[in-house]
Amino acid sequence: MDIEFEVKYGLDGVAVAISSISCVDGEKGKLVYRGFEIEDLIQNSNFEETAYLIWFGSLPNENELDFLISMLSKKRELPNQIIEMMKLFPKNSHPMEVLRSVVSMLGMYSKKENSTFENAINLTAKIPTIIAYWYRIRNDLPLIKPKESLKHSENFLYMMFGKIPEHFNLFDKALILHEEQGMNASTFASTVTASTLSDIYSIITTAIGTLKGPLHGGANEKVLKMFDEIGSIENVEFYINNLIEKKEKIMGFGHRIYKTYDPRAKILKNWIKEIFINNNIKYFEIALKVEEIVVNKFKDKKIYPNVDFYSGILYNYFGIPKEFFTPIFAMARIVGWTAHAMEYCKNNRIFRPKAIYNGPKNLKYKEVKGVE
Amino acid sequence: MDIEFEVKYGLDGVAVAISSISCVDGEKGKLVYRGFEIEDLIQNSNFEETAYLIWFGSLPNENELDFLISMLSKKRELPNQIIEMMKLFPKNSHPMEVLRSVVSMLGMYSKKENSTFENAINLTAKIPTIIAYWYRIRNDLPLIKPKESLKHSENFLYMMFGKIPEHFNLFDKALILHEEQGMNASTFASTVTASTLSDIYSIITTAIGTLKGPLHGGANEKVLKMFDEIGSIENVEFYINNLIEKKEKIMGFGHRIYKTYDPRAKILKNWIKEIFINNNIKYFEIALKVEEIVVNKFKDKKIYPNVDFYSGILYNYFGIPKEFFTPIFAMARIVGWTAHAMEYCKNNRIFRPKAIYNGPKNLKYKEVKGVE
Ligand SMILES: CC(C)(COP(=O)(O)OP(=O)(O)OC[C@H]1O[C@@H](n2cnc3c(N)ncnc32)[C@H](O)[C@@H]1OP(=O)(O)O)[C@@H](O)C(=O)NCCC(=O)NCCS
Ligand SMILES: CC(C)(COP(=O)(O)OP(=O)(O)OC[C@H]1O[C@@H](n2cnc3c(N)ncnc32)[C@H](O)[C@@H]1OP(=O)(O)O)[C@@H](O)C(=O)NCCC(=O)NCCS
Repeated sequence: MDIEFEVKYGLDGVAVAISSISCVDGEKGKLVYRGFEIEDLIQNSNFEETAYLIWFGSLPNENELDFLISMLSKKRELPNQIIEMMKLFPKNSHPMEVLRSVVSMLGMYSKKENSTFENAINLTAKIPTIIAYWYRIRNDLPLIKPKESLKHSENFLYMMFGKIPEHFNLFDKALILHEEQGMNASTFASTVTASTLSDIYSIITTAIGTLKGPLHGGANEKVLKMFDEIGSIENVEFYINNLIEKKEKIMGFGHRIYKTYDPRAKILKNWIKEIFINNNIKYFEIALKVEEIVVNKFKDKKIYPNVDFYSGILYNYFGIPKEFFTPIFAMARIVGWTAHAMEYCKNNRIFRPKAIYNGPKNLKYKEVKGVE
Repeated sequence: MDIEFEVKYGLDGVAVAISSISCVDGEKGKLVYRGFEIEDLIQNSNFEETAYLIWFGSLPNENELDFLISMLSKKRELPNQIIEMMKLFPKNSHPMEVLRSVVSMLGMYSKKENSTFENAINLTAKIPTIIAYWYRIRNDLPLIKPKESLKHSENFLYMMFGKIPEHFNLFDKALILHEEQGMNASTFASTVTASTLSDIYSIITTAIGTLKGPLHGGANEKVLKMFDEIGSIENVEFYINNLIEKKEKIMGFGHRIYKTYDPRAKILKNWIKEIFINNNIKYFEIALKVEEIVVNKFKDKKIYPNVDFYSGILYNYFGIPKEFFTPIFAMARIVGWTAHAMEYCKNNRIFRPKAIYNGPKNLKYKEVKGVE
């Protein structure tokens, strides 16, 4: 009996839902939200408008957009007690641990009767505040309160640094790129949580904990760690060949669906290239060399840079420490997470696959223990 | 194109792993851990020994069991700061929210280099303390510190109530029944989290948030709510028929795998029947009547009571309030959760299924917005 054959490892190719949220074309390297290519959206839209599109299915008119912007900007502040508790957290806590914990705790402060959309908007508004407050608290800096007049991404950078950096609009566009990406591991895990009809705080806590893993969103932090370890361009070849020899996964490369260049990586790389003309962007030359070697080496396996390979270089340029890269991923992806959970629950069925048993059979306690 | 056909709704029948941990036979109504039937284990084993069996694959010898018991009993206490923060939590927080949050926060206090088994044992030791402390805190009672000399379940009841109730061994056996059950929704969700190589605190936070849903572990609380609403035996028929008419799911009934009586429900029911001979156990007569009507009504669909239907009656008998039923489920199931996560990661592949896109295509921002 060939049981190996029956197992769908990693659910590769298995469809678990019908969805109208996004389309990932792995052959052509296209990512499309609700019918719009991401190249079109980064050109013309912004984080809030794209969030509206992903949640509600079509682009908003002016009133609809104003309404969403106002909801998002009014709900940024955290309950005072949560801020007090954050100040008690061990200072070396990873921002993803803090984010996971605070989102979970927010459930204790929520009005249970809120609609799911209201809850989704509420959490989307608060996640940047959690991240920025933790950045300030762990660095013993005074908190900077959210400013209602600022846009979502502007306000985040303002709460982090007290000022809004040059090229900040690229940060907003980077968020657009991260908002949604089909049934990736964090979205899928949180959909499983949603399928038991659990609450939104459970759903998003699941998503954050799943994104944290280095094979998923955690890769962007690991990529920068790798660049740091490489140090300078003449070490690239030795370093990468060593990884390949040890059969280790190279962070920031490969993707279940994209078997060509990840369109998001392509866009990020172009932005960095543009800034690079006038500024010497740290890590960029090392990154180019790493890419060259890896793509060449794995031509047959079709392994290309993914979104996590270039995003960190951009965030680093804005002065964001690498432990905060994955939280920024979460700050954008919450839009996709909540959209998928709500879509799935409209036509819900609990997830309950099976495992094929290959363990011992017919054991008896007393016989094994030799007692009677 | 019949896309509906291609979708594996709820992953019904899809195998996602090979596992030697447990075997669920849905036709015969059997649950087997590592080759031992649960009927055998409740007769001869206890929580700790069964945990050893599930984690390590075979029954322990005396030294091995002593070692596990000593590890479990030494790691019960929570960091002081966590206790202080729990005292700040809103008093009406649901124990599952507290458990999800505190487990997540414990990640911030952990030594990252611990082996996964050590972490699994550590969390298994601490979950009862989180639950009991929250029970005491929300009721303004002084905390009762864990007592090293007591067994896992004894110590839990002691921390809750300051004494160990009659029939407490049935509580221990009820934990055995809940320790493991294959790729149910919470185990599966946490395996997805594990497949990104995320940490154990993320894995268990995912599991807790998923278990919380009323279609999964949350059902045991809902069952008692239903009994309370029914109030007395003569209302059962009207109440249940009304639910059926409204096509609502009846809590505590049905199962993806068991198409006959859930063996765990059968065992729990028998225990309650035995105690019932001498004591008038609250809700039991109502439960029997509900069962009779539902099983009769849904003969064709093969819907029988599941584990959550009778467990609450037993816990209520021990004086445990219904909001604490699902946490008790978690307190036992953490054994299965961690066993599956570790087993899957030995042969890991990230979970990344697909969704079939049925949304709009080829939209252009400027055309839709009517701008140029
Ligand atoms: C993303 C990832 C988890 C996808 O996993 P997956 O779908 O199971 O991978 P695939 O099936 O496409 O892999 C095909 C082959 O390429 C190899 N491969 C994939 N990514 C690789 C990488 N980053 N480095 C080296 N080899 C890689 C696999 O080992 C596999 O080899 P095999 O056929 O000899 O076993 C995987 O590419 C990876 O671990 N990447 C590094 C982490 C990362 O950047 N994650 C962020 C994703 S946005
Ligand atoms: C456990 C549960 C989620 C399993 O879901 P599932 O595997 O998708 O359910 P099934 O496919 O076995 O259901 C088969 C049919 O029985 C119905 N059914 C299942 N459980 C039912 C219940 N508790 N009450 C009424 N009808 C039920 C389903 O609606 C379905 O009907 P249909 O064929 O007309 O659509 C489901 O039985 C349920 O919601 N039960 C109540 C909650 C509960 O007790 N959960 C604890 C589980 S341990």
